[in-house]
Amino acid sequence: MKIHSATEYFDEPLHLESGRILDSYKLIYETYGELNKKKSNTIIVFHALSGSHHAAGFYQGDKKPGWWDSLIGDGKKIDTKIYFVICVNVLGSCFGSTGPMSNGDKDSLRLKFPVITISDMVKSQMKLFSRLGIEKAHAIIGGSMGGMQALCCAVEYPSFTNRVISLASTYATQAWAIAFNRLAMEGIVNDSRFKNGHYKMSDFKKEGLFGFAVGRMAGHISFLSPLSMNSKFGRNYVETDGLYELFGRFQVERYMEYNGHSFAKRFDPLSYLYVIKAMNIFDASRNYDSLKDSLQHVKAKMTLIAFKEDKLFRPHEMEEIKNTLVNLGRGSHVNYICIDSIYGHDAFLIEFDKFDFYIEKALQE
Amino acid sequence: MKIHSATEYFDEPLHLESGRILDSYKLIYETYGELNKKKSNTIIVFHALSGSHHAAGFYQGDKKPGWWDSLIGDGKKIDTKIYFVICVNVLGSCFGSTGPMSNGDKDSLRLKFPVITISDMVKSQMKLFSRLGIEKAHAIIGGSMGGMQALCCAVEYPSFTNRVISLASTYATQAWAIAFNRLAMEGIVNDSRFKNGHYKMSDFKKEGLFGFAVGRMAGHISFLSPLSMNSKFGRNYVETDGLYELFGRFQVERYMEYNGHSFAKRFDPLSYLYVIKAMNIFDASRNYDSLKDSLQHVKAKMTLIAFKEDKLFRPHEMEEIKNTLVNLGRGSHVNYICIDSIYGHDAFLIEFDKFDFYIEKALQE
Repeated sequence: MKIHSATEYFDEPLHLESGRILDSYKLIYETYGELNKKKSNTIIVFHALSGSHHAAGFYQGDKKPGWWDSLIGDGKKIDTKIYFVICVNVLGSCFGSTGPMSNGDKDSLRLKFPVITISDMVKSQMKLFSRLGIEKAHAIIGGSMGGMQALCCAVEYPSFTNRVISLASTYATQAWAIAFNRLAMEGIVNDSRFKNGHYKMSDFKKEGLFGFAVGRMAGHISFLSPLSMNSKFGRNYVETDGLYELFGRFQVERYMEYNGHSFAKRFDPLSYLYVIKAMNIFDASRNYDSLKDSLQHVKAKMTLIAFKEDKLFRPHEMEEIKNTLVNLGRGSHVNYICIDSIYGHDAFLIEFDKFDFYIEKALQE
Repeated sequence: MKIHSATEYFDEPLHLESGRILDSYKLIYETYGELNKKKSNTIIVFHALSGSHHAAGFYQGDKKPGWWDSLIGDGKKIDTKIYFVICVNVLGSCFGSTGPMSNGDKDSLRLKFPVITISDMVKSQMKLFSRLGIEKAHAIIGGSMGGMQALCCAVEYPSFTNRVISLASTYATQAWAIAFNRLAMEGIVNDSRFKNGHYKMSDFKKEGLFGFAVGRMAGHISFLSPLSMNSKFGRNYVETDGLYELFGRFQVERYMEYNGHSFAKRFDPLSYLYVIKAMNIFDASRNYDSLKDSLQHVKAKMTLIAFKEDKLFRPHEMEEIKNTLVNLGRGSHVNYICIDSIYGHDAFLIEFDKFDFYIEKALQE
């Protein structure tokens, strides 16, 4: 499978949900597979908070492939011999699309960058798809924040696709998830090295913001579950640490420490603030009287895949989407599945063999 | 009801579980009610992480009473007309008992203070009870970390009481709870104002450590539950904040912010590190081959009260204690109740009318 990576520049204004305007912007994206002549074989993959447009395949020298490589590739469930797959880095993120730091140290807007919503992310991507000549996709699919984009697209661009697959996501971010995101925000802005957003990008290459690391550790709690933590770490202690040392660590603490601090070195803290803000204020019913009023615009078949132990976006939230569609008399157009996995929210990035069948089925229907 | 407050000084060494020794120490405590002539009407109340010996009643000028005032008092379920109630501030804490900062800015041990375990806390309290002439208590009772002390006491001092009541607690702190505590530790030690423990106590009177506030906010997530957060805050936005402002807040965020920062002003950060350490390494089966081997020492009737939505110490963990006792053939000596409450871990400090009956019953049996 060949990875095609490109950046598209838009010298036209993007009117944002907030009323503010991005005069120009750029989107970086990857594609896998070939667009067929009818332009009918596109699958849009939306990424999550910490993801990027690099959804599959290996870059030269990399040890790890893209974040959904287990699903996307030649002969895989999202078969790049059949489908033309596109994944776009969202506005606000830090991997090459326009975000608070995308103009580098000197010219970036930093805290003056406008708040981006899920709707804005989707709107900008629709401009890109249009430029690529794609007016209709075979399917759109995403997990977590990617699932928000998928749902938003289904409501706001109902003719764009007949197949929407959303995993480990919600119709509106609930208080518990907002609370977890708050820890990241507090950690970042209260760290003196954040300098109210006036840091240099190179400041964090060697050592990320500690406050960001703490916030990210909080994220890891919400991405895992009590069951997966117990199964992975139990009460095992780090071999070299003393039980009665104040700073002696359980293995779960070492895991958090490692992941928190390494993430803070590779993700831009301002981008993190903007992307979690977009997640926090996501509400598929905004600008409508109710979720029912909003979802009545959906035409596509919806496949909703929840995970039993997901503590960030609980299965109940996905079920609410199903129930609303059923109430709208669209029960035959929705398939809700709750996967029995101990992995919690992260299951959509881990336990592929438990849900890839449903994706395959949804793509073929 | 009269509050009696006193500090008891011990000029004898306390041999700690770690092998280290406290040459001398002090314990501050409160009592309510009167000790009867037979010295048979004592109820020991153990406090939780953020609690203190001030369990009930009002101090002059205070707007809020002690943390379990709804249960303890004249004519209340823990009736101070009948019982003599004692609550002791645990070793390591910051309300007057010996802890890392108890000698003030100059002479405190700070990070050289030894790690205290739940077993050490109980051991020191037993010395106090003995000095007060109390060789046997009518009952012992505690929630969360207080429940750990109650269980520890039941195992290590099986003749001390016939009635043990533990609420919202565990037999050994699990990875998920340890992970939450890690956030507090990271927040505290990485805050530059912590100065590796060499702060002045007055440094935080006006403004607590930000990192501590963040860690405490994490605590609040674990003390509440998704259901209680939704019920309390939903997705309501702070009236004066803009939805599209990066730092605009949901009400749940304001709640966390307020509680995190105000707590960081009134609790000593070093004490917090020591007390969460004691909780993290608590394991009722340590020094035994198994939990079964440990619990076979218990003679008292155990009343175990769990809360359905408790995300910190899940009902399953309390049930494990019950099941182990049942396996030991002591089924008639254990009463496990899982209370249907949306309040999560904090329910033991809130929804008294849902469980006070079981406490009353346990005390009368």
